[in-house]
Amino acid sequence: MELGITERLRPILSAVKGMIETEIAPLDAEFLAEVDRGDRWQFTKRQTEILEGLKLKAKAAELWNFWDTFRDGPQLNTVEYAYLAEEMGKSHLAAEVFNCNAPDTGNMEVFARYGTELMKERWLKPLMAGEIRSAYLMTEPQVASSDATNIAMSCVRDGDHYVLNGEKWWATGAGDPRCAVYIVMVRTPTEGGKHQQHGMIVVPADTAGIEKLRPMEVFGHDDAPHGHMHFRFTDVRVPVENLLLGEGRGFEIAQGRLGPGRIHHCMRAIGQAEKALELLCQRAQSRDAFGKPLAHLGENFDIIAKSRMQIEQARLLCLKAAWMMDQGDAKAAAPWISQIKVVAPQIALEVTDHAIQMFGAAGVSQDTPLARQWTHLRTLRLADGPDAVHRRQVARAELSKYQTGQKSS
Amino acid sequence: MELGITERLRPILSAVKGMIETEIAPLDAEFLAEVDRGDRWQFTKRQTEILEGLKLKAKAAELWNFWDTFRDGPQLNTVEYAYLAEEMGKSHLAAEVFNCNAPDTGNMEVFARYGTELMKERWLKPLMAGEIRSAYLMTEPQVASSDATNIAMSCVRDGDHYVLNGEKWWATGAGDPRCAVYIVMVRTPTEGGKHQQHGMIVVPADTAGIEKLRPMEVFGHDDAPHGHMHFRFTDVRVPVENLLLGEGRGFEIAQGRLGPGRIHHCMRAIGQAEKALELLCQRAQSRDAFGKPLAHLGENFDIIAKSRMQIEQARLLCLKAAWMMDQGDAKAAAPWISQIKVVAPQIALEVTDHAIQMFGAAGVSQDTPLARQWTHLRTLRLADGPDAVHRRQVARAELSKYQTGQKSS
Amino acid sequence: MELGITERLRPILSAVKGMIETEIAPLDAEFLAEVDRGDRWQFTKRQTEILEGLKLKAKAAELWNFWDTFRDGPQLNTVEYAYLAEEMGKSHLAAEVFNCNAPDTGNMEVFARYGTELMKERWLKPLMAGEIRSAYLMTEPQVASSDATNIAMSCVRDGDHYVLNGEKWWATGAGDPRCAVYIVMVRTPTEGGKHQQHGMIVVPADTAGIEKLRPMEVFGHDDAPHGHMHFRFTDVRVPVENLLLGEGRGFEIAQGRLGPGRIHHCMRAIGQAEKALELLCQRAQSRDAFGKPLAHLGENFDIIAKSRMQIEQARLLCLKAAWMMDQGDAKAAAPWISQIKVVAPQIALEVTDHAIQMFGAAGVSQDTPLARQWTHLRTLRLADGPDAVHRRQVARAELSKYQTGQKSS
Amino acid sequence: MELGITERLRPILSAVKGMIETEIAPLDAEFLAEVDRGDRWQFTKRQTEILEGLKLKAKAAELWNFWDTFRDGPQLNTVEYAYLAEEMGKSHLAAEVFNCNAPDTGNMEVFARYGTELMKERWLKPLMAGEIRSAYLMTEPQVASSDATNIAMSCVRDGDHYVLNGEKWWATGAGDPRCAVYIVMVRTPTEGGKHQQHGMIVVPADTAGIEKLRPMEVFGHDDAPHGHMHFRFTDVRVPVENLLLGEGRGFEIAQGRLGPGRIHHCMRAIGQAEKALELLCQRAQSRDAFGKPLAHLGENFDIIAKSRMQIEQARLLCLKAAWMMDQGDAKAAAPWISQIKVVAPQIALEVTDHAIQMFGAAGVSQDTPLARQWTHLRTLRLADGPDAVHRRQVARAELSKYQTGQKSS
Repeated sequence: MELGITERLRPILSAVKGMIETEIAPLDAEFLAEVDRGDRWQFTKRQTEILEGLKLKAKAAELWNFWDTFRDGPQLNTVEYAYLAEEMGKSHLAAEVFNCNAPDTGNMEVFARYGTELMKERWLKPLMAGEIRSAYLMTEPQVASSDATNIAMSCVRDGDHYVLNGEKWWATGAGDPRCAVYIVMVRTPTEGGKHQQHGMIVVPADTAGIEKLRPMEVFGHDDAPHGHMHFRFTDVRVPVENLLLGEGRGFEIAQGRLGPGRIHHCMRAIGQAEKALELLCQRAQSRDAFGKPLAHLGENFDIIAKSRMQIEQARLLCLKAAWMMDQGDAKAAAPWISQIKVVAPQIALEVTDHAIQMFGAAGVSQDTPLARQWTHLRTLRLADGPDAVHRRQVARAELSKYQTGQKSS
Repeated sequence: MELGITERLRPILSAVKGMIETEIAPLDAEFLAEVDRGDRWQFTKRQTEILEGLKLKAKAAELWNFWDTFRDGPQLNTVEYAYLAEEMGKSHLAAEVFNCNAPDTGNMEVFARYGTELMKERWLKPLMAGEIRSAYLMTEPQVASSDATNIAMSCVRDGDHYVLNGEKWWATGAGDPRCAVYIVMVRTPTEGGKHQQHGMIVVPADTAGIEKLRPMEVFGHDDAPHGHMHFRFTDVRVPVENLLLGEGRGFEIAQGRLGPGRIHHCMRAIGQAEKALELLCQRAQSRDAFGKPLAHLGENFDIIAKSRMQIEQARLLCLKAAWMMDQGDAKAAAPWISQIKVVAPQIALEVTDHAIQMFGAAGVSQDTPLARQWTHLRTLRLADGPDAVHRRQVARAELSKYQTGQKSS
Repeated sequence: MELGITERLRPILSAVKGMIETEIAPLDAEFLAEVDRGDRWQFTKRQTEILEGLKLKAKAAELWNFWDTFRDGPQLNTVEYAYLAEEMGKSHLAAEVFNCNAPDTGNMEVFARYGTELMKERWLKPLMAGEIRSAYLMTEPQVASSDATNIAMSCVRDGDHYVLNGEKWWATGAGDPRCAVYIVMVRTPTEGGKHQQHGMIVVPADTAGIEKLRPMEVFGHDDAPHGHMHFRFTDVRVPVENLLLGEGRGFEIAQGRLGPGRIHHCMRAIGQAEKALELLCQRAQSRDAFGKPLAHLGENFDIIAKSRMQIEQARLLCLKAAWMMDQGDAKAAAPWISQIKVVAPQIALEVTDHAIQMFGAAGVSQDTPLARQWTHLRTLRLADGPDAVHRRQVARAELSKYQTGQKSS
Repeated sequence: MELGITERLRPILSAVKGMIETEIAPLDAEFLAEVDRGDRWQFTKRQTEILEGLKLKAKAAELWNFWDTFRDGPQLNTVEYAYLAEEMGKSHLAAEVFNCNAPDTGNMEVFARYGTELMKERWLKPLMAGEIRSAYLMTEPQVASSDATNIAMSCVRDGDHYVLNGEKWWATGAGDPRCAVYIVMVRTPTEGGKHQQHGMIVVPADTAGIEKLRPMEVFGHDDAPHGHMHFRFTDVRVPVENLLLGEGRGFEIAQGRLGPGRIHHCMRAIGQAEKALELLCQRAQSRDAFGKPLAHLGENFDIIAKSRMQIEQARLLCLKAAWMMDQGDAKAAAPWISQIKVVAPQIALEVTDHAIQMFGAAGVSQDTPLARQWTHLRTLRLADGPDAVHRRQVARAELSKYQTGQKSS
């Protein structure tokens, strides 16, 4: 069970880290500040300049599409990718600069695995080139999407087309003017078990009948121009071949799609926890109260130690989940993914909260990245399944070891 | 130790509660939405209409200045006032509608106790009439203000004036165009112990040399038009008689000022916790997953029970702290105030966080008041002293019971 | 809602406290050490001397049967009694010295409320005189007694007698040679809802067919000579009039019996928490490491502060529950009793655990009362209903506020 | 960073696990019960039969001295050894059966690394053969041994001897009649820094002047015949060559000695946590309340999931600490050892406590191994340094990454 930094990873990791520290992170603040200038839902000239400039540099340095690499290239595995994701978590722009951002990586994986040749040509290729962006439409306002069998958007066949009706919200990235295609989870008119009644369908963003109701806000922020969109679909028609794999196979795809994405999310969260602890320690040593550095007051030593212990444990758990994924048995890996999905955001939130407290009022303000980081991490406890659902999966896996004819409802 | 709702309080409480539920809370959302129309730092016509209209109604119903009431009127005590504060916590506008909002109540108390007749005429009277607003300038960006002896704004005598130089931030309410006066903590050139080197001085908002550098943001929100201002003072001159009590007596005033204010803050936090629990329970019963209401899934019963137990305990502790305050010995009451200052925001945050999680993605969005409530409550763990400082006070009080000649540094 | 120490209570509390500190607590260790001399299940001569001597003193000082007092005497209410229980919690022997120990107070209450005149003469009178002891047999090894409707001991009528068969364990106090009578929860052959199928029956300890299988151990301790007995009942016959109130009314009695008893347990737990915090603070100030008193190292200030805040909150909650009980509506008081039953043992355990840690290895040893106190408190999280059952009650009470036709299973 | 079960380990692990499950664990209860028959501080005939019989089997199967193996044999490393230690944690007798028990492994390591040839012949050889036992005397009653620089037992040279005076307690294993030798930490009359004033000296158990004052009790248990002894040394004379390495070098030896021992302790704790979770899950599925298995009530799913997540994280952290140790840089490994020393006992205690609660009253009784396991684990939070001291080490290591000329006091 090799969980360390391998020889082949070492130079890549070093290059990624270096580029983030010296070229990407220093531009984060400027990029974000641009959002308030002009139309929030278009990129400003300067934003395009920053982002595309960095992407060119990344491509030139062959620091691009690590996702693709581990499928077809010199073969970074998920454990190795995880170390890169951790670094990308430390900067707002980094993941996209390396074309490794959610939800595009997950969507690319879906196209690569389940897409037709046409889809690969039309969507996968420009996604991998960083020319377009995509969104993933799953959650709905009317049902508890934590139980995904509740997903209700109707998808009814009408000749050579499917007709979609319903609402989707929290379509992350769908505000982006470059966002050209959606992968949409729908209810197909299938017989069978409750995990055989859904489908996954590809919908071009410019299809008629799609209405952007509003951007959803996260603690008051719309995260423009990326955004989290609330859509209404009214008689949206797409060709039947846009349904991936076939009716009733949506959960099959969802499962394959979400595993690696969750690992990336979690490792980025670890990266953010590291950043928060670094800020916390620096503040604790540079600020005095009651005659000594904050570090030496009250429980601050204990907070620092507990944070370090939480981060190390969470990182190791993520790496183990990545390793499980690399063994090729998605079903066996699933409870491990659920474990990290609970653990990583939670500890990253805790460490960030401690850092906020150490900074005093500055911690909640615009003067540190901590407040923004906290609200982002807080949504991770809900996105891709709330904690409770993942704990439920872990518990069921555990109890199944001891079951003797008893049903686990 | 009467901690219940007294006979004389009952009708007042009922009227306050009724007015909040039927008249004030229903206007909160509209009032807040107005902020984004036009100049954020001016009241819109509609905002003025809403706020002044409600204030007139409150005055007409003699639901006004409960603070004053318990000093000179039919004598509500702090315990009774606390029950009212809890209700006011449930609506954005309520506290100001009844002229019971921070920091004005605290400032009014300072003017009433320590002000000259002139100050009472010029500032206290219009404050009590709700005609002007005030701010309290204490925290500074360059020092850890958690240890208030660090406060550094210089205040040097020059003939009949004091001249102030330095920076202050987090001046809550100072963005309000009606804000006419500041009470400012400064370092006076005093000999003596570290708690005898500061003063509290009254500075009209329009004094020359005061520069508004920027509004501070709380998790990205400027809370306009109220605001939390960052100021630079350059050679700000005020008459010597503006210094309250005299040089070196700032801490004396701060202590008296902050006690009741903290109780109000904490009881409003309790009100918010109650509101969050109510929303949580309603959601838990009206939303289904895995074939049953959320309430019946996983640890949700336990979350509800724990929240109820935390709220009851925190409320009783606040009431006891209020009762201690009513006994007239501020020094004896101090560790009790510190206790609630730690406990109330913390449990209100926890309950609110549970409610957010129960709502799923809606919980972090603009569709519930929970996200806004959370960020407000989070700052309470820093405002008026961070948790660590209050725990320190409680521990020192505890250890002093057993001390035998040992010094507690 | 008067939760303070009343005028009439003050002298009684002071006398109780004084007698515990100067006369009872100093004999605790000697009494306990006697257990290892000779037959564990008989009182040694010295044990009798100590206990009966103290009881005589208590009677002489009219510090006796506070339970009775509040029913018929000068009328201490439950809130007042609670303050006395807190003090009794600080000494091993105190509760029995004042004839206020579990399970006798609860059993006396049952006889007083539901007993026949004969029972009052035969059992209540000597119990109130401290001449005999009693036990309460509820829990059974074969079923989850947390759900008391599982209680299965059969009770079948045969002419003028009931015949009992089954096992009971954790019959606290039944090892005591003075224990003369048991109140036993049994399943009666009743039609009706699941709370109408049990009865409460009085069984003299010397009835034929009762077999003491073994003493149960608590973390390896048998708590002799008091003990927690495991019984087998084989065709145990008692006259029909021994069934209290009648068939199917067992839950009715259980509910009335357990409320005050739980308050006493909880307030004694608070007393133990106070004692632990006192020991903790003394140790923290008298022991040095790394060049300073332990109190000034790491998070110790925070531990002390948090302990103080937990204790204050838990005490206030117990007092409020007692006050609810005093209002005479047992159903309304029930969720409050459940709240304290969860909170008080939990915080007392936490504070005791912190004290153990502060003492280092001495904390787990025979050199402090902390280890014994911890194991005793740990059982309180199970006795009279495990935490989970009480949280369940609190949650159901909470949710019922918002229910609109929904069933809470 | 290979943290998995290697090929060479697999058959050994399998054999160890098999022997524990089928031959050792089934005899635990009988062995323990024997303690109460006859002299607690001598082995009964049956105890000797059980223990020596198992040791013979283990030797015959070449499952013996894994400690030695990894030094000189086919080279199991610390990571591999850790997996074996986890299994041994699941049975009371297992560690000694394989000659891998504390404190003997640690003492053997000291003799092997720092002992003279004479010591190796006289003590190491019979220890490795399992013929004698040893103890490690460090902690003292009069000083806070958490700061080991406080250790005060005097060791003064007198000609060819050192003369020792003082008290030691918690000498684990020193009650064992087979315990023949002590390694003792003493204060040597050295000049220099506070970590250069102590020595480590070898004292035969039968040296004149050693008085066994009493066995220390752990939550009321003396753990006979092993025991935790309290000694008084009065003019105890040993030859000068018994001082290991030389005066002032005690900390050097202590550091080397405690690292691997802590990893073993922690991995055994992980084994106990696994056992507790197994018992918990079995109980949760086999016992019903309120109409369903306990597993499906309240937060039990969440408890199971959290326990699984805690165990996985703690195990990975232990394995990483073991891996650090295997890299050969003890100083770099030290903060990792401190991390696991805090984490492993804490989570094992939590899981065990949850299991106790799931079992109800049976959980604290003699009917499950949980209560005994809990008290043992509780002492681990104190033994080899209390949590606070290890957190302090972790915090100092963390802060040192950012230090720029500041001192960390």
